[in-house]
Amino acid sequence: MSEDRIIGRNAVLEAFRSGKTVDKLFILDGCQDGPIKNIVREAKKQSTLIKYVTKEKLDSLADHGKHQGVVAATAACEYAELEDLFALAEKKGEDPFFILCDEIEDPHNLGAIIRTANLAGAHGVIIPKRRAVGLTGTVAKVSAGAVNYTPVAKVTNLVRTIEELKERGLWFVCGDMDGELMYRQNLTGPMVLVIGNEGKGVSRLVKENCDYVASIPMKGDIDSLNASVAAGVLAFEIVRQRMGQ
Amino acid sequence: MSEDRIIGRNAVLEAFRSGKTVDKLFILDGCQDGPIKNIVREAKKQSTLIKYVTKEKLDSLADHGKHQGVVAATAACEYAELEDLFALAEKKGEDPFFILCDEIEDPHNLGAIIRTANLAGAHGVIIPKRRAVGLTGTVAKVSAGAVNYTPVAKVTNLVRTIEELKERGLWFVCGDMDGELMYRQNLTGPMVLVIGNEGKGVSRLVKENCDYVASIPMKGDIDSLNASVAAGVLAFEIVRQRMGQ
Repeated sequence: MSEDRIIGRNAVLEAFRSGKTVDKLFILDGCQDGPIKNIVREAKKQSTLIKYVTKEKLDSLADHGKHQGVVAATAACEYAELEDLFALAEKKGEDPFFILCDEIEDPHNLGAIIRTANLAGAHGVIIPKRRAVGLTGTVAKVSAGAVNYTPVAKVTNLVRTIEELKERGLWFVCGDMDGELMYRQNLTGPMVLVIGNEGKGVSRLVKENCDYVASIPMKGDIDSLNASVAAGVLAFEIVRQRMGQ
Repeated sequence: MSEDRIIGRNAVLEAFRSGKTVDKLFILDGCQDGPIKNIVREAKKQSTLIKYVTKEKLDSLADHGKHQGVVAATAACEYAELEDLFALAEKKGEDPFFILCDEIEDPHNLGAIIRTANLAGAHGVIIPKRRAVGLTGTVAKVSAGAVNYTPVAKVTNLVRTIEELKERGLWFVCGDMDGELMYRQNLTGPMVLVIGNEGKGVSRLVKENCDYVASIPMKGDIDSLNASVAAGVLAFEIVRQRMGQ
């Protein structure tokens, strides 16, 4: 992992209190003395994901520095709220167009997807809190500056978020080989494009909640495109349809 | 660099003699004794690119191993000939469709482009010998197996290759922001898609030799898509047009 790290009790507590965005908090399994409890309390206030890990794992996360049982992984930039994504669409006078990443793990893919989202005119990217890479330094760098323009919202429960966004009039399309050819589907209107995990694709529950399943025509010998390339091809099919080409 | 390395005089000479594909040969600047001359002679027989470098550079390339003035960077798999690309198109009974990478430097991009070429039904990828990444282990891995199906040819002079392929009836389209919108151009027929360098885009001489310059509609704040994402979007526009969608 290439995320920025904060190591040791005082440093981590200070990070929370100064309002720094902590992506994940790692605590030594079994460690529950007073100072650790204080840190956990601050983390819960900010709904930060807490993971209890072994000493070996924590040593490695701390790059063998003195961690005193606690390491925090911080985000390279701030997360947006879902409202910020809607606000950007409204400001541009356009139907909302978001990209939802269902457990993208590789920072190069997430960075490239945020870059693509910006250039395809999407109004934001949604990522889950768990089992996914956050806004790390690598992601920010690979996005080529797009993280400064395209809001990225982190949500706790993808399915609940999908339900909430559907109630607000958005349609969901996910990319999957089982789907109907993307050219034959109407992808105009308020739309969320769902991109699946690098290895597993779109998860079952998320896929069941999608309105459309769209496929890219596959003419080759291997299984699937790189996740960020697939996101690019699908996002620009939405652009093409929106442009009426 | 993450290429596989062969270090030291005997090992490098043996690699050449056993027919291993050497991508680049690095020699200590000023070094020209008998054994080195033998190695240079073998390299020239196989038109391997030779680079004369400083001791610091060579030490670093050899990861501070005993290089005796010579390090070879080997390819993870064999290169194809241009004829192999034509043969694949003919075998499939399709108009040739190749992707030419104009100085792609990042192995992740080249790997993703070969993966995309395979799935877009392209009959091969062409890369230049100089100022570009070759078929390294990382490229092979990122291609997700596509290097086993999609031939990759390495050429000495891109402009001469373009002239040669034009004589054989191929049309050249490069992706560039200055071009006309890709939807408005006829990209069917025997076609080579040219993808430019990550930072500099398509080089001037190559661009001047292209028949079409096609642009992806850009709706964002930043400059350009990731090279492998741009390659994916353009390649699948060619697929769409070929499918008559």
